[in-house]
Amino acid sequence: MAQQIDPKDAPPPVQHKALLNVDLGEAYGNFKCGPDDEILPLIDHANIACGFHAGDPLIMADTVRKCKQYGVKCGAHPGYPDVQGFGRREIQMDGEELTAMVTYQVGALKGFLDAEGVPLHHVKPHGKLYGVMCRDYDVAKAVMQGIPKGVPVFGLAGTNMEKAANDLGIPFFAELYGDVKYSKDGMLVIDRKKKAWKTEDVEVHIGQQLNSQSVTATDGSTVKLPLKDYPISVCCHSDSPGCMDIITTVKKVIDEFNKKHGR
Amino acid sequence: MAQQIDPKDAPPPVQHKALLNVDLGEAYGNFKCGPDDEILPLIDHANIACGFHAGDPLIMADTVRKCKQYGVKCGAHPGYPDVQGFGRREIQMDGEELTAMVTYQVGALKGFLDAEGVPLHHVKPHGKLYGVMCRDYDVAKAVMQGIPKGVPVFGLAGTNMEKAANDLGIPFFAELYGDVKYSKDGMLVIDRKKKAWKTEDVEVHIGQQLNSQSVTATDGSTVKLPLKDYPISVCCHSDSPGCMDIITTVKKVIDEFNKKHGR
Amino acid sequence: MAQQIDPKDAPPPVQHKALLNVDLGEAYGNFKCGPDDEILPLIDHANIACGFHAGDPLIMADTVRKCKQYGVKCGAHPGYPDVQGFGRREIQMDGEELTAMVTYQVGALKGFLDAEGVPLHHVKPHGKLYGVMCRDYDVAKAVMQGIPKGVPVFGLAGTNMEKAANDLGIPFFAELYGDVKYSKDGMLVIDRKKKAWKTEDVEVHIGQQLNSQSVTATDGSTVKLPLKDYPISVCCHSDSPGCMDIITTVKKVIDEFNKKHGR
Amino acid sequence: MAQQIDPKDAPPPVQHKALLNVDLGEAYGNFKCGPDDEILPLIDHANIACGFHAGDPLIMADTVRKCKQYGVKCGAHPGYPDVQGFGRREIQMDGEELTAMVTYQVGALKGFLDAEGVPLHHVKPHGKLYGVMCRDYDVAKAVMQGIPKGVPVFGLAGTNMEKAANDLGIPFFAELYGDVKYSKDGMLVIDRKKKAWKTEDVEVHIGQQLNSQSVTATDGSTVKLPLKDYPISVCCHSDSPGCMDIITTVKKVIDEFNKKHGR
Repeated sequence: MAQQIDPKDAPPPVQHKALLNVDLGEAYGNFKCGPDDEILPLIDHANIACGFHAGDPLIMADTVRKCKQYGVKCGAHPGYPDVQGFGRREIQMDGEELTAMVTYQVGALKGFLDAEGVPLHHVKPHGKLYGVMCRDYDVAKAVMQGIPKGVPVFGLAGTNMEKAANDLGIPFFAELYGDVKYSKDGMLVIDRKKKAWKTEDVEVHIGQQLNSQSVTATDGSTVKLPLKDYPISVCCHSDSPGCMDIITTVKKVIDEFNKKHGR
Repeated sequence: MAQQIDPKDAPPPVQHKALLNVDLGEAYGNFKCGPDDEILPLIDHANIACGFHAGDPLIMADTVRKCKQYGVKCGAHPGYPDVQGFGRREIQMDGEELTAMVTYQVGALKGFLDAEGVPLHHVKPHGKLYGVMCRDYDVAKAVMQGIPKGVPVFGLAGTNMEKAANDLGIPFFAELYGDVKYSKDGMLVIDRKKKAWKTEDVEVHIGQQLNSQSVTATDGSTVKLPLKDYPISVCCHSDSPGCMDIITTVKKVIDEFNKKHGR
Repeated sequence: MAQQIDPKDAPPPVQHKALLNVDLGEAYGNFKCGPDDEILPLIDHANIACGFHAGDPLIMADTVRKCKQYGVKCGAHPGYPDVQGFGRREIQMDGEELTAMVTYQVGALKGFLDAEGVPLHHVKPHGKLYGVMCRDYDVAKAVMQGIPKGVPVFGLAGTNMEKAANDLGIPFFAELYGDVKYSKDGMLVIDRKKKAWKTEDVEVHIGQQLNSQSVTATDGSTVKLPLKDYPISVCCHSDSPGCMDIITTVKKVIDEFNKKHGR
Repeated sequence: MAQQIDPKDAPPPVQHKALLNVDLGEAYGNFKCGPDDEILPLIDHANIACGFHAGDPLIMADTVRKCKQYGVKCGAHPGYPDVQGFGRREIQMDGEELTAMVTYQVGALKGFLDAEGVPLHHVKPHGKLYGVMCRDYDVAKAVMQGIPKGVPVFGLAGTNMEKAANDLGIPFFAELYGDVKYSKDGMLVIDRKKKAWKTEDVEVHIGQQLNSQSVTATDGSTVKLPLKDYPISVCCHSDSPGCMDIITTVKKVIDEFNKKHGR
C-alpha cells in the first residue's frame, strides 16, 4: 500500500498544525511506567490506558484529574486484555469480542471523564492491537465499532485503520511517530519492549515526517506518508528508555515546525 | 441497629409495589452461571455484573441487549476485583480505591448501555462488597462516591448503606431478600457458595417480609425491617441451587401481594 | 502430512491397549465445568488444569486427591494464560516465554502431587496451545522444553507435536479423540465452545479410529492415523454438552476393543 | 507479646552469623521493580516472587538462573493473588485456600529450581500475608501447611509465625528488618508503598537489632527482639526508594558485625 519514492520527489510539509500525543497512565498498581508528571506540560493529547494492558482505576482517576489540570485532551487507549504482555502480544479474538472489549474500556474511562466533567476527545488503540488493525481490516472495523458515535480515532494513514474509519464514518487523526520506526510498506515496527533512541536520530526522524510527509524506512528506502488532509498528532512513548529526551526533542521540532508555518 | 420484636407486634404490609431484581450476566468466558434467559421474563430489575467479580465484555453486551428486549431495567453490579472468589472474599481497599473501582465498573457498563440507548437505572454493589458496606460506613460512603449523580443505589435499609446514601443525597431502594437469611441484627448472612432452599421456606420467608415488614432471623427471633418509605425491590440470586424454583416462587408471592394491595 | 486413503485400504486395528483420558479440574472458583466426580471412575488418565486457562489452587488440590483415591494417573494440563478465553484463544508468545509458562504450570501441579505422594504421569497441553503445537514446530519444541526430564507428553501423532517430542527425546503417547473432529490434513478442529455429539456418531468415530487406525475427516475423506508404535490414550472432554453420554459411549467402545484383542 | 525494656537492659548481640535476604524477581511483564542485578552480588538469600503478587514465569526463570550464577540461596516468596495490590491488600481466605495457594506458588518456583538443579532453601511469605500471619495463628498455620516437608520458613520471632512453625515442626529463621519499622508490640509496620530511609537511620536501626537484640519502635520505646537461638537473616526490600543505598548500608553493618564476632 505504501509508496516508495526518491527522496528528491518528497511531498511538501504537512499541511496541518502538528500536535503531540503520549500514552499516559500506563503504570499498574505499585508498578511505575513513564514520568507522566513531567510529560503532561508538554503535550496536547493523552491516550489514557484503560486497565486491560496497563492502568488501574486509581491510576485512571488520577491521570484524568491531571490532564484536566494541564488542559491536555483525554483519549481512551484500549488494548488487549494482557497486563503481563503490556498489550504487546497478539491475542486471537473474534469481531464481536473485540467490539465489546473496546466498548468496555472506553466506557470505563468515560466513567472517570464524566465524574470530572471532561469530554472524551478521541480513542487510540494500544500497541499490538493498533498494529493488528493496520494489518487486518476486519479487526480494525470490529475495534472501531466499539467507539462511541462521533468520537475520532487516532491511527496510521494508508492502512486498514484509515480505511475502516472512513467506511464507518469515524473522524480520523493521522499519527506520525517520533520514536517508532517504519517498515518499507509504511507499517510500524512494534517491539515488546521499547528500544533507546539518540535524540539526533529522533530529530531527523520526526523532522523528515513533518517537513516532507515521508520517512526513511528500516530498509533505507524513503516511504511517502499518505496523510491526505487529516489532522495530525505526533506520538511518543513514555516507556521508551530516555523518554523525556525523546519527548522534549520532538516537542522542540514540532514547535519550530508550527512556528515556521504560522500555526 | 435492628429492632427485635414480638411477632404479634409486627408492622403492617410493605407500603410500596414489590418489584423483583436478580443479578444477571454473572457468567465468565466459557463458564456459565445462572439461567439468565429463563429469568429475564420474570423480573423488573437486572443487576449486571461488570467484569470484576464475574461478567466479561461479551457477556455484558449480550445481557444489556437482552434486558432491553425484555424491558428489564438495567443496574450496574460492581464487585471486588476477584473473579476467582466471585466477589465473596473481602479485600482490604482504601476509600479512594473503592471509589475508583466503582467509577470504573459503572462506566464500563454504561458504555454498553449508551451503545444500546438504554439508561442506567441503578447501582447495586455485589456480594461481599455489599456486606462490608452494611457493616462499615466509610466503605459504604466510598463505594457510593463512585456512583454517577442522580442514579439510585439498591441496599439494605437500617444499615450503613442507607445512612451513606442519605448523607450523599443518593436515592435509595430498600431490598428484601428471597433467598438470603438475616442475622438477629438485621444483617444478611452471605455464603461464598449459595445454599439450597425449599420453596415452601422461600414462600414463608418473603411473604413474612412483604406482609409484616419483618423477618425471622437465623436465631429464631423476629426482626423488624426498617423500610421507612423507600421503594422496594426483592432480590433473588441466579447462582442458588434450584434458582428457577426460588425465583418463580418469589415472583408468585410478589404478584399476589401486589394484586391484593392493588399495585 | 496426513495421508488420505481409500477406506478399504485402512490399516489394521490399533496395536496397543486403548486407555482413556479426560481434562479434569477445569472449574474456576465458584464456576463449575464438567462432572468430574462422575468421570473419575471411568478413566485411566486425568489431565489436570493448572490455573492458567482454568483450575485454581483449591480445585487442583481437590482434583489430585480424588485422582489418587480412584487410582487415576495424573498429568499436567498447561494452557495459555487466559481464563476468560478458556485457553482457546491463540496468544502470541515467544519460545522462552512458552517454556517458562509450562515450567511454571507443571511445577505448580507437581506441588500438589508431591504433597500427596503421587507421581507426575504425563503432560498434555490444553486447547489452542495443543492446536498451535500441532501446526508450529517451534511452539511445540518450546512448550516441550518446559516438561521435566523423562515425563511423557500426550499429543497428536503425525504432527509437530510428535516430531518435537522425538527430537527432544520425550516419550510420546498418541491420542485419539472421541469428541473432536479431524480435518483432511489430520489436524483437530478445535472450537471455542464444544459442540454436542450424538452418541451413535461418537461410537462410529472412535470405533473407526481404534479398529482401522483411520478417521473420516470433516470433508468426508478417510485419513490414516500415523500411530506407529506409540502407546494410545483416547481423549474426551468434560465441557462438551452431554459429556457423560459421550464418555460412557467411548468407554464402552474402548472396553469392547480391549476385550476383543485380549488387552 | 513483645517485651518493652529499658535500653540499658538490652540483651547481648545476636548469637549467630548475620545473613542478608532480599525479595527478588518482583517485576511483572514489562514493569520493572528493583535493581536485581545490582543486589544479587550482595546477598545470601533471595525470596523469589511466585507470580501471585509479582513475578511471572519468564522473570522467575531468569531470577533462578541468576541466583544460581551468584550462589545466592533461593527461597519461594508466595503472596496474596493480587498483582494490582502487590500483595499488600489483605484478602479474606479460609485455611484450605491459603494452604493450596502456597502449595501452588512454591510448586511453581520449584519447577524452575528443579530445571536448574537448585534446591529450595526456604519459604518466605510476602507482604500483607506475612503481616497477617504474624497477627493470626490460623492463617500462619494454614500458610505453613503449604510448605514442603523439611523446608525452613523465614519469619518474625515472637509472633504467630514462630509459634505455627514450631507447632508444625518447620525449621525457623528469625528475620531482622533493615528498612521496615516495628510497632511497640514487636510487629512490622507494612506500607502499601515503601517509604524512603536515610542511610544513617538504616545504620542505627539494623545496628541496634544486631548488637542488642532490640529495636526502637515507632512510639520511641525499646522493644526486645525474642530471637532465641534461631538462625538470623536480615531483610531489605528492592522496591524501597533508594534501595541500593539501604542495602549497601545494611550489608556494611552486617559485614562489620560478622567480622567483629569472628563469623
